[in-house]
Amino acid sequence: MNKDSNAKPAHPIGVFDSGIGGLTVVAALKRALPDADILYLGDTARVPYGGKSAETVTRYSSEIVAILQSEGASPIVAACNTASALAVPRLGQSVAVPLIGVIDPGAEAAVRATRNGSIGVIGTRATIGSGAYTRAIHALKPEVNVLGTPCPLLVPLIEEGLLEDSVTETVVRRYLEPMMEKGIDTLVLGCTHYPLLRPLIARVCGPEITLVDSAENCASAVLSLMPDDKGTTGRTSRLDVVLTDSSEGFLRIAEKSLGLQIDSLTVRIAGN
Amino acid sequence: MNKDSNAKPAHPIGVFDSGIGGLTVVAALKRALPDADILYLGDTARVPYGGKSAETVTRYSSEIVAILQSEGASPIVAACNTASALAVPRLGQSVAVPLIGVIDPGAEAAVRATRNGSIGVIGTRATIGSGAYTRAIHALKPEVNVLGTPCPLLVPLIEEGLLEDSVTETVVRRYLEPMMEKGIDTLVLGCTHYPLLRPLIARVCGPEITLVDSAENCASAVLSLMPDDKGTTGRTSRLDVVLTDSSEGFLRIAEKSLGLQIDSLTVRIAGN
Repeated sequence: MNKDSNAKPAHPIGVFDSGIGGLTVVAALKRALPDADILYLGDTARVPYGGKSAETVTRYSSEIVAILQSEGASPIVAACNTASALAVPRLGQSVAVPLIGVIDPGAEAAVRATRNGSIGVIGTRATIGSGAYTRAIHALKPEVNVLGTPCPLLVPLIEEGLLEDSVTETVVRRYLEPMMEKGIDTLVLGCTHYPLLRPLIARVCGPEITLVDSAENCASAVLSLMPDDKGTTGRTSRLDVVLTDSSEGFLRIAEKSLGLQIDSLTVRIAGN
Repeated sequence: MNKDSNAKPAHPIGVFDSGIGGLTVVAALKRALPDADILYLGDTARVPYGGKSAETVTRYSSEIVAILQSEGASPIVAACNTASALAVPRLGQSVAVPLIGVIDPGAEAAVRATRNGSIGVIGTRATIGSGAYTRAIHALKPEVNVLGTPCPLLVPLIEEGLLEDSVTETVVRRYLEPMMEKGIDTLVLGCTHYPLLRPLIARVCGPEITLVDSAENCASAVLSLMPDDKGTTGRTSRLDVVLTDSSEGFLRIAEKSLGLQIDSLTVRIAGN
């Protein structure tokens, strides 16, 4: 990392994701903590995590967290819902700095939002299959009814930039309508890519369903961990991005859709 | 591998793919060489290769080929079009046994099939971006017009089992119609997953367009390498599958659609 050590705080916030989707969390962090430096690590050489096993996702996450720790990052945010669901509970004890996933903040926001006690959750096959959101919601409010639907086609559609497209809308309707018919009043966007589809999902859901964006709620959780003076330096903060493979298309989509300015981009091999 | 060393030939044919798609090549090999043992290695921990860089795909392929060599496999077939396009040309010299990709056999079959000299190729972003099919076709017949179209949504749709679905048909039409309007009379299915969509693609293309299946043509190329007595033992042949991560859904789809009997399935970590 090319850093100016005179002017910067000791620790950048580390953020990692299987790919580029976690930049939605970075955008939320930038709004909540405009002065914080952020070091983002996207495991683009092994993306996606969403269809892989808990063992493999945990091994990859452990390697990525080790890189962020070696760069002095603290706290570390697992911006990937799949890593948050499968790896964060296993890694928590072995990591020397605070490690924050997106599941608990999303679950808390969903429990606050629901009026009728019926919450839908969408995510990857691995996230939904893990039952992590259901457990986190029930730990807060056992009587809530949680309906989870894996949506494996949404990430590929988003990565193709088909954010407003008839095919994407058809697929979104297929995934959401069965939960809507069962009366959910709150929907957790349980994958870091999904906030990019928020306008389309909001149109399909209508005004009666509250959308819970795990990126926004994760940023609030990070904010609560930070020292009070973290946001007061008045200096220009950095966003440094490390990827495990060169990545093109979606980085441009994310930069454009999210309005992020990336200060440096490097490629570094993880794991081997 | 649990093998009966008295009854089997010394070398299984090694077949590898980024995931499970290469089982279409296995099915074609089984038809061409019913007595040959096959050792299939699917890199499901790092699937897909199709959006990754040449360096990363070459590194992964090199690790997988080393595993197959350590198991005594010969020849080795890169059943993955992306690995064939990006890694086989770089690895060829360093591999001690014959290494066969799917690009050249597909290109030869396409050149034989075309009547009007206009060939379409569909594949992953990496395969099409590499220009490998265009180079292989032009090496055989420079005057052929080659139109390549990356089809990144087809693999996710196939892996969801949406082989006959209105969404898949809409997406296929979007990809193919511009090439059809330009008058292609031959279409190379340049990804090991695509033969599973052959009925739908054939319907969209109509009878005037010849579909070239790289799996079938790759099997013919392997057959030409084998000793004459390879197919005459009369014994029951084995299909052993090694995956780098546990994999569920698509393995069932492939087994069912392709009618393959898998004798053993093991999970082995590659690379790290």
